Amino acid sequence: MTNPATHSKTLSLAINLLTRRSNTPEDAGCQELMISHLEPLGFKIERMRFGNVDNLYARRGTTGPLLVFAGHTDVVPTGPLDKWHTHPFEPTIKDGMLYARGAADMKTSLAAFITSIEEFIAENPNHTGSIGLLITSDEEGVAVDGTVKVVEALKARGELIDYCIVGEPTSNKVVGDMIKNGRRGSLSGKLTVKGIQGHIAYPHLVKNPIHLVAPAIKDMVETVWDNGNEYFPPTSWQISNMNGGTGATNVVPGEVEILFNFRFCPELNNQGSTEANLKSRVHAILDGHQLNYDLEWEYSPPYITPRGNLVEAITEAIEQAYGVTPELSTTGGTSDGRFIADICKQVIEFGPLNATIHKLNECVGVADIEPLKETYKLTLQKLLK
Amino acid sequence: MTNPATHSKTLSLAINLLTRRSNTPEDAGCQELMISHLEPLGFKIERMRFGNVDNLYARRGTTGPLLVFAGHTDVVPTGPLDKWHTHPFEPTIKDGMLYARGAADMKTSLAAFITSIEEFIAENPNHTGSIGLLITSDEEGVAVDGTVKVVEALKARGELIDYCIVGEPTSNKVVGDMIKNGRRGSLSGKLTVKGIQGHIAYPHLVKNPIHLVAPAIKDMVETVWDNGNEYFPPTSWQISNMNGGTGATNVVPGEVEILFNFRFCPELNNQGSTEANLKSRVHAILDGHQLNYDLEWEYSPPYITPRGNLVEAITEAIEQAYGVTPELSTTGGTSDGRFIADICKQVIEFGPLNATIHKLNECVGVADIEPLKETYKLTLQKLLK
Repeated sequence: MTNPATHSKTLSLAINLLTRRSNTPEDAGCQELMISHLEPLGFKIERMRFGNVDNLYARRGTTGPLLVFAGHTDVVPTGPLDKWHTHPFEPTIKDGMLYARGAADMKTSLAAFITSIEEFIAENPNHTGSIGLLITSDEEGVAVDGTVKVVEALKARGELIDYCIVGEPTSNKVVGDMIKNGRRGSLSGKLTVKGIQGHIAYPHLVKNPIHLVAPAIKDMVETVWDNGNEYFPPTSWQISNMNGGTGATNVVPGEVEILFNFRFCPELNNQGSTEANLKSRVHAILDGHQLNYDLEWEYSPPYITPRGNLVEAITEAIEQAYGVTPELSTTGGTSDGRFIADICKQVIEFGPLNATIHKLNECVGVADIEPLKETYKLTLQKLLK
Repeated sequence: MTNPATHSKTLSLAINLLTRRSNTPEDAGCQELMISHLEPLGFKIERMRFGNVDNLYARRGTTGPLLVFAGHTDVVPTGPLDKWHTHPFEPTIKDGMLYARGAADMKTSLAAFITSIEEFIAENPNHTGSIGLLITSDEEGVAVDGTVKVVEALKARGELIDYCIVGEPTSNKVVGDMIKNGRRGSLSGKLTVKGIQGHIAYPHLVKNPIHLVAPAIKDMVETVWDNGNEYFPPTSWQISNMNGGTGATNVVPGEVEILFNFRFCPELNNQGSTEANLKSRVHAILDGHQLNYDLEWEYSPPYITPRGNLVEAITEAIEQAYGVTPELSTTGGTSDGRFIADICKQVIEFGPLNATIHKLNECVGVADIEPLKETYKLTLQKLLK
């Protein structure tokens, strides 16, 4: 461990947050620690507990534009403790790296939110617009009582957000090389195709559901759902599981179950796909093959933030702080950005390297921490000064 | 129970066999009971025990033609005893029906074999050719140490059979309405198609084996393997089981397993299919789709007995004994006929109604027993007198 006296405020706060064992959906006092910094700055604090999830919404100012930093205090399970070089809840600096569960995903970002705001307000006590924080303790879990519920509450009272920066670890090879300006939508289907079960020796008495569905699968695979757009690759469709059969080798099964998933390019300027459009095209293919089927859907929305003043501001800020020009990307899984986009036209995600997240010996580079605070602060300056 | 004093010899012998608890692969003394009838008639007796299976080969005469009666002494499990109206091993006559496990499948046929032979020899002590019996106690089980092994032994010493009558219950609605003059072949495949597993959000890194195999399945389903022939319906191909997927809904599986089965029409006069032909056509389809796969085969041979003097003889015998003209059929599952056909050009199957076989309260009509003996005896007369 280096000498704590030499630690920057951001590093000290990050270490303080990282000692708290906030296994999802526990908050373990992280939000109260953040509140202790925000209240003296004039933030209005709202503790929004839903189910067993702690959420925090804090806002300084009443006018627009409203820039919100969003993130989560919960962390994923540590995995086997004996495989960590140091204890995951005893933050340790070694060879220039800060090791702890949550170091990259995403307590360092939370600390940088706070210290960037502190410095910005100290320098600009009468900034324009408002600064907000939307913090949950259930991003890594089922994500039911977290950000989505806070967004619903804000929406219900007509509180819209102009700019949102999610502190997820988006950097790829060097910090600053990638920001996310959108995420694909996810549309899953549980398809059950029905036939008529019977003995394999009496083929005239059976209807084999695997035989019936195969041409439909072929058609789905061959379908070009869209060609992507400026920000997204083309929509992809994949079967994850297909199971049919009684186990017996002389029986034709009565049904087959297929789980499939779209990762889809959201529509922008008539390029891309929508939930409704994808569903109706799937039904058209299945109906075209005259299948007898049940189909249950599950939907997770996409979001997209086209180039505009938020993307421009954070891009410039990253260039200044890290000397790197970030690439815009929409790859990877889902994030809470999808929920916030419901009340915010410009959502981006930017944070540390994601190489070690959810793994043993999660870490961030100590030298990358101050530029992260600087990036957030410069963005505030560009948008709210 | 009716008065045993009034029972025919065939009925008495059937009842004697049916009291023996020959749960497959047990013989429970049935073959020794048969031997006690055959030895006095001059049959040469060979007890052929393979593994835990009793087999009997008996022959009277040394010249051709050789007519063999084939069958099995073992029976399928009784199922729950309390659901039988009478005990399955206490043969009971009620309302004109003889109830017992094995009554139809096939101890009544075994009794009729013996009594028809007794009467035929009494009337024709110097018949032409030879009479044989090929009896196993493992037809209902794995059928590994039964008929197939006896046939191998006969083949090894060059003993070929001219005519074989298998006593399986082939009658459908009334006794005499159906004889089997063949059975389809069965050719099964265990197909494993390989792809590349990966996260569903990164479709460019995966190769989905379910997607890859779907067009091949479509081609297999659409293939007309043959058009059948005079005795068989067209070959049918069916998938019994198809399973792929890790269970997780965000993972594309690395492989998919498909179990399929042909019930095929054997080739006769260039119509129908062969094992080699079917295999090569399956490989051609899979290879045509450039699939990476493993394929394991399992084969059970077909047999076919075209119209000829055995079919003619037993058809006339049935007409005389039952007043019914039998239909030739090759439907249903497999039987030991497939093994015997290896050393016998003319194999047919004929026996009681199959409505109750393998079920609770298995039975035969008492009035149908003497005509069965008569049928076998008339056939002997037509072929060996």
